[in-house]
Amino acid sequence: MDDRLFIFDTTLRDGEQVPGCQLNTVEKIQVAKQLELLGVDVIEAGFPISSPGDFNSVIEISKAVTWPTICALTRAVQKDIDVAVEALQYARHKRIHTGIGTSDMHIKYKFNSNREEIIERGVAAVKYAKRFVEDVEFYAEDAGRTDNEYLARVVEAVIKAGATVVNIPDTTGYCLPDEYGAKIRYLMEHVDGIDRAIISTHCHNDLGMATANTISGILNGARQAEVTINGIGERAGNTSLEEIAMIIKCHSTIPVQTNINTTKIYPTSRMVSSLMNMPVQPNKAVVGRNAFAHSSGIHQDGVLKNVQTYEIMDPKDVGIDDNSIVLTARSGRAALRHRLSVLGIDMDGERLDKVYEAFLRLADQKKEIGDDDILMLAGADRTAGHSIKLKYLQVTSGVGVRPVASIGLDVAGEQFEAAASGNGPVDAAIKALKCIIRRQMTLKEFTIQAISKGSDDVGKVHMQVEYDGQLYYGFGANTDIIAASVEAYIDCINKFRH
Amino acid sequence: MDDRLFIFDTTLRDGEQVPGCQLNTVEKIQVAKQLELLGVDVIEAGFPISSPGDFNSVIEISKAVTWPTICALTRAVQKDIDVAVEALQYARHKRIHTGIGTSDMHIKYKFNSNREEIIERGVAAVKYAKRFVEDVEFYAEDAGRTDNEYLARVVEAVIKAGATVVNIPDTTGYCLPDEYGAKIRYLMEHVDGIDRAIISTHCHNDLGMATANTISGILNGARQAEVTINGIGERAGNTSLEEIAMIIKCHSTIPVQTNINTTKIYPTSRMVSSLMNMPVQPNKAVVGRNAFAHSSGIHQDGVLKNVQTYEIMDPKDVGIDDNSIVLTARSGRAALRHRLSVLGIDMDGERLDKVYEAFLRLADQKKEIGDDDILMLAGADRTAGHSIKLKYLQVTSGVGVRPVASIGLDVAGEQFEAAASGNGPVDAAIKALKCIIRRQMTLKEFTIQAISKGSDDVGKVHMQVEYDGQLYYGFGANTDIIAASVEAYIDCINKFRH
Repeated sequence: MDDRLFIFDTTLRDGEQVPGCQLNTVEKIQVAKQLELLGVDVIEAGFPISSPGDFNSVIEISKAVTWPTICALTRAVQKDIDVAVEALQYARHKRIHTGIGTSDMHIKYKFNSNREEIIERGVAAVKYAKRFVEDVEFYAEDAGRTDNEYLARVVEAVIKAGATVVNIPDTTGYCLPDEYGAKIRYLMEHVDGIDRAIISTHCHNDLGMATANTISGILNGARQAEVTINGIGERAGNTSLEEIAMIIKCHSTIPVQTNINTTKIYPTSRMVSSLMNMPVQPNKAVVGRNAFAHSSGIHQDGVLKNVQTYEIMDPKDVGIDDNSIVLTARSGRAALRHRLSVLGIDMDGERLDKVYEAFLRLADQKKEIGDDDILMLAGADRTAGHSIKLKYLQVTSGVGVRPVASIGLDVAGEQFEAAASGNGPVDAAIKALKCIIRRQMTLKEFTIQAISKGSDDVGKVHMQVEYDGQLYYGFGANTDIIAASVEAYIDCINKFRH
Repeated sequence: MDDRLFIFDTTLRDGEQVPGCQLNTVEKIQVAKQLELLGVDVIEAGFPISSPGDFNSVIEISKAVTWPTICALTRAVQKDIDVAVEALQYARHKRIHTGIGTSDMHIKYKFNSNREEIIERGVAAVKYAKRFVEDVEFYAEDAGRTDNEYLARVVEAVIKAGATVVNIPDTTGYCLPDEYGAKIRYLMEHVDGIDRAIISTHCHNDLGMATANTISGILNGARQAEVTINGIGERAGNTSLEEIAMIIKCHSTIPVQTNINTTKIYPTSRMVSSLMNMPVQPNKAVVGRNAFAHSSGIHQDGVLKNVQTYEIMDPKDVGIDDNSIVLTARSGRAALRHRLSVLGIDMDGERLDKVYEAFLRLADQKKEIGDDDILMLAGADRTAGHSIKLKYLQVTSGVGVRPVASIGLDVAGEQFEAAASGNGPVDAAIKALKCIIRRQMTLKEFTIQAISKGSDDVGKVHMQVEYDGQLYYGFGANTDIIAASVEAYIDCINKFRH
């Protein structure tokens, strides 16, 4: 019989560290509940000591989710562990993930320490965490560049101290698959008591080999894989959950099974991409727009004769359904609620009323409301607490005319208006806005996302504004791309810490 | 001493098959010249029998490029080879790439044939191609799913027939790295005369393992790798050139060297992304916007102490230069010409004059002109032959107003104008346009790309319009995103075959 491979999802921790991907607590709960539907075993919900937001998210996710283990990250530091324990208080199944760098590079430059002291610190952290929770995972940071003999000593020591899972991260994404597999094999063969713990992979994609390294780790004995949706994460990202799940499904020679319901992969990918404002590139494996598109004449001919000539996966297996339901202005509250729940968002009462209202306004403007729109609407109540609000906006631009904008803002109850011209419609609108909000702020990044099937679809704008040495992220969504841009800018300003 | 690994770039053939990535001949020449600068050994320039455009591109690329071998794809069919030979007539170094499906799936369903007949057809194609060119590469399509014993017989037969290179494609992206490596190893050990040919890898990324499979192939004896810039290609794409080049550079245990000048990787990636209107996802390995960005506190701390704690590559090695030159309205023709040549585009005389004129107009509107803008300008003369031209456009939209647009078109010399309102500014403008161009056309896809650092940057719009059962691609670029959208729509209409 096949072994069980545990899927440890770190979309909400390692993934959420990416610039521009920050989620608020409500959004994190949405993602966590979708991950539960998807069937992940462990949800890494945050790094509680790093910020009050992370702390609070771990608490709320713990309350919202039933089956998966909730995991909180710490350094090998007592205070970190204390805060993590507090954040995990409501979790039905809880895990602390603690650890320390073990490569010579990390020991020397990051900790100014030595090998023996690092083992002591790791063991002490595991023992301390064990006072509070049964399930303790230890990470040997930069294990990918740690020599195997020393790494085996570290692993043996932390298992003896009580670690139930030991994570062997290729932190810099350096390893070749054979090297990484040999490392896991070495540990399986040389660590006393290895059968008392689960070995976990955590591979980064800097050289494009995260997925292959993870598979190589599994083939050599690892039984937990740390992954993210769409492979998001620091730098070039982490191992993609969807790739690992589909490789295991397609290859019976890999002697493990997961609890993943693959038909939930595509909706989950869409939800994460939409909430994090992180587009999935069209040629992304498994979940990209083109992943199942055959374009060349030779291929089309083959596919028409027998789909298996060029296809190894059925799009239905990953939840891609061409006949996806489209809602219209005639759809009722129940239909919206059902579609939201299919998309992993459970909503009721006043919150559903508010989203339904926004839905009707949008359905008035465009005939067909797709999943993207619904996800956008569900996240739309985030402007509620804003002190600066857009009252009206009028922009004129084109070819052969000078763009001009007039804008009206409500700033903490007071009304202001201004007008300006600019090089383009967005430029004019932001210049007008700056006549009212007179601060030294600089637009550092500006991303428009409008991958859709009609000229009246919702455009999404993501911005980064620098103010007082800090970067602030803002988001806007509107059928009018100019209005969405101004909304995103105002979203940034509302986040300024004064 | 390390062996030489030949880099075979198929961006212009396999990459260019992707929906929306089609290039015109001028753009293909730009890419080919950049690939030459980058140091690729072989450029697969097209599939000449598939269309007059492909045929012509192979001719023009052959004339434009000096050092790399120019390769043309064919099926194992005499007519294909005849046309390829004609297309390659001007190439200094030429190769024909012919082949046939060898998996049971392909033999049975695609060719309704049998194993012996397939070998005969492959051998006949190689022999026929050898009459015209010395360098003949054979591909065994779907080799990834072909059993090794039969595959070895095919390879032995085509080498005996004169094939100088034999390509072992994992056409469906199915193989695990160990499997693919074992396949190459089997061929190295069981094929008589294997030392007379070079074995080539061609791996697809459907399960996210193209790069690892290619490396596994190399470690087991392959000495040519077929790759594309940014990993573009059918479905989930091909192996990324940049990943293979950097893995080999970072790992001295891989006993090969390439001729790639890695500092040209980043400019090449940008050029291909820009010309093909194919965004690179931020977390793409090596060339993504975040590939070298450290965001978490732990990482930043480590990087500040010693950059190698978290970085295995130097961004400079791949040509990412933070101090990249920015041009302004004060930059002269020489500066523009120099920057163009750094970006791989050699331009002179009248063409340079035209681009410089457009450059000055743009520099008037925005202060700093970056590489993206320059690449956009260099491709801007493509509207020259259009029969429908935008004369003026005025759009008013905002929040609390009904979007309205008026438009003026020049249709084959005659002037028309119209106005309409819509749900957003783009919708209003396209409705106005449709009052003039009265055809049954449907906007199928609409992508706005504006990843930039200011509100006055150039937005790029990519569209797909369906007309008379055919899909047409259009592109527009303008500091005004609404104007860019209308330009893209008009670009589509100009391509309609009547």
